[in-house]
Amino acid sequence: MSTQAKPRQVKLRDVAQAAGVAVGTVSRVLNANPTVTEAVRRKVQAAIDDLGYEMDVVAQSLRGGTTKMVACAIRDFDIPQFATYIKEAERIFRENGYTLLLSSTTNQPDVEMALLRAFERRRVDGIMMTISDEGHAGVARALAEAGVPVLLIDRDHIGTLDRVTVDHFGGARAATQHLLGLGHRRIAMLVGDLKAFPSRSRVEGFRAACAAAGVAIDPGLLRERVLDQEDAFRETMALLSLPDAPTAFFVAAMDTLGGSLRALRALGREVGRDVALVAGSDSDLAELYSPGVTAIRWNLAEMGRHAATMLLERMRGEAPATSRALKLPTTLVIRQSCQAVTAGNRD
Amino acid sequence: MSTQAKPRQVKLRDVAQAAGVAVGTVSRVLNANPTVTEAVRRKVQAAIDDLGYEMDVVAQSLRGGTTKMVACAIRDFDIPQFATYIKEAERIFRENGYTLLLSSTTNQPDVEMALLRAFERRRVDGIMMTISDEGHAGVARALAEAGVPVLLIDRDHIGTLDRVTVDHFGGARAATQHLLGLGHRRIAMLVGDLKAFPSRSRVEGFRAACAAAGVAIDPGLLRERVLDQEDAFRETMALLSLPDAPTAFFVAAMDTLGGSLRALRALGREVGRDVALVAGSDSDLAELYSPGVTAIRWNLAEMGRHAATMLLERMRGEAPATSRALKLPTTLVIRQSCQAVTAGNRD
Repeated sequence: MSTQAKPRQVKLRDVAQAAGVAVGTVSRVLNANPTVTEAVRRKVQAAIDDLGYEMDVVAQSLRGGTTKMVACAIRDFDIPQFATYIKEAERIFRENGYTLLLSSTTNQPDVEMALLRAFERRRVDGIMMTISDEGHAGVARALAEAGVPVLLIDRDHIGTLDRVTVDHFGGARAATQHLLGLGHRRIAMLVGDLKAFPSRSRVEGFRAACAAAGVAIDPGLLRERVLDQEDAFRETMALLSLPDAPTAFFVAAMDTLGGSLRALRALGREVGRDVALVAGSDSDLAELYSPGVTAIRWNLAEMGRHAATMLLERMRGEAPATSRALKLPTTLVIRQSCQAVTAGNRD
Repeated sequence: MSTQAKPRQVKLRDVAQAAGVAVGTVSRVLNANPTVTEAVRRKVQAAIDDLGYEMDVVAQSLRGGTTKMVACAIRDFDIPQFATYIKEAERIFRENGYTLLLSSTTNQPDVEMALLRAFERRRVDGIMMTISDEGHAGVARALAEAGVPVLLIDRDHIGTLDRVTVDHFGGARAATQHLLGLGHRRIAMLVGDLKAFPSRSRVEGFRAACAAAGVAIDPGLLRERVLDQEDAFRETMALLSLPDAPTAFFVAAMDTLGGSLRALRALGREVGRDVALVAGSDSDLAELYSPGVTAIRWNLAEMGRHAATMLLERMRGEAPATSRALKLPTTLVIRQSCQAVTAGNRD
């Protein structure tokens, strides 16, 4: 047996010929692409079974230098907005024959650097990720040395990499203008970490709107590093207990609205009557809360689609040499959570 | 240069010795384990850089037969409950040196079978997944032929595989008993696909509670294949327009509460006054809606932790030969969305 000649390796084109379809169709079947009809899938699978075709991805990786894997690392993937983004990106990659590796960065530079090295060892073909601190020299170096295309998700500082971002500046400015227009002057803002683009541009938008209206910002009302609902609860409680409490809350950090709503409820403050409220990202909760919460919205599915497409083009060498940046627009969805401040609170 | 002897390959233990740490610590650094302190991480990374240590995962895979990759395939990962589950599972895998592959099954048996083959080609060390139809012969065969350990997520039919499930039967029975106890007799139930365990056991729990109370079920009030918020909106609208409309809604399908709430709002029905409402899975929306929506709750993070731990044990050969099943308990969180029916609606 051991002296017998190894049988000729069955190739993709043999399968295609036997099934009477194009090579690309066989590839789509192998990659579990849902656009293939069940009839075609069965025909191709029958040919694969008949011919004993075996695609060895790991061995191919060593020969061809491509693993058809893309890594995605984000700070926390139980944030619903990220899930919508990843869902769309994964669909695009899967339909193009790529498998997604998913890791959490836990929002720590050390983990981000270690992940970049781990992705390199896995020989992924491309990476899309968030980073916690756009000014971190070690992370910047690790990104530069990644060896494969990297696309940044909603990060803007490192200009040499492709990136998809959101116009948080415009969104925050519109939200602040809305509150100012209703007479609010003491506006509290809850925002994430200023080391990263989204929070930084939200604060810039807030400042721009206040400056344009000639309204001074009380630094005590600007609360940074609000990263989850517990942070939002604590900061909202603290702000409400100030002697000169804010009349409006701009809860700008992602997926933190629930925390602020619990604090308002705990202290018996009614949204739209006692305080005005704007959410930094739209959600079922913002829409269906009573009263509905005015919120900033952007198209997360479109963001995921664009990111995956841009990264695929870069991986295939179809992108221009210079880095590309796509900025998605935001809209302010106005509901019933903001009202003119009562005379007693006006300053 | 080409005739020169290849330098001795730097091993993990050389790095450990140079850094003055255990081999396991080096491994944890390489795997981006966040439990390693920054000081230790730096020391190990310095030793790696000094010695020029290179871990080639792909080449190791060919030699050692292990890729340290685990695949996770679920029907839709922008369902927040799944995201919490995956977040915890990914953390356990990452801390144990495994990387997660993530794919959507789009809830189609053909895609599930194709993914199982694709995972095999990627030589993953283990798989955890949902399947859309526990009675599908092709999927059952593909699972049996997977060649690596498979853990089913909230699926119970295929008894030869490890699985983590939720006591949906008990949850649905408690929810139904609650509604029956408040006097409701015409209870609508919105549920997913009965081909899979969660919906099937929810309906069984509903039937058991009705049977015990001697209440006949109107088949017209049991709506199946409610898979997303659009389905829930449409079915709730249809149910409300029945001449003999239900007085209570048990919106049992995952992440569909928003759709039913929109329908009730569109028709001007107030929850807790005009209709009673129970949600099949708890959420910020259920908690913070006015009135709060009574909901079934279970610990999703714990479910993810257990699933990852069970699969790791199976992959390492530390699990017993027979399959293991873990069933998580549910609790009914009672809020203000259910009230005694008004006399006019009582039958």
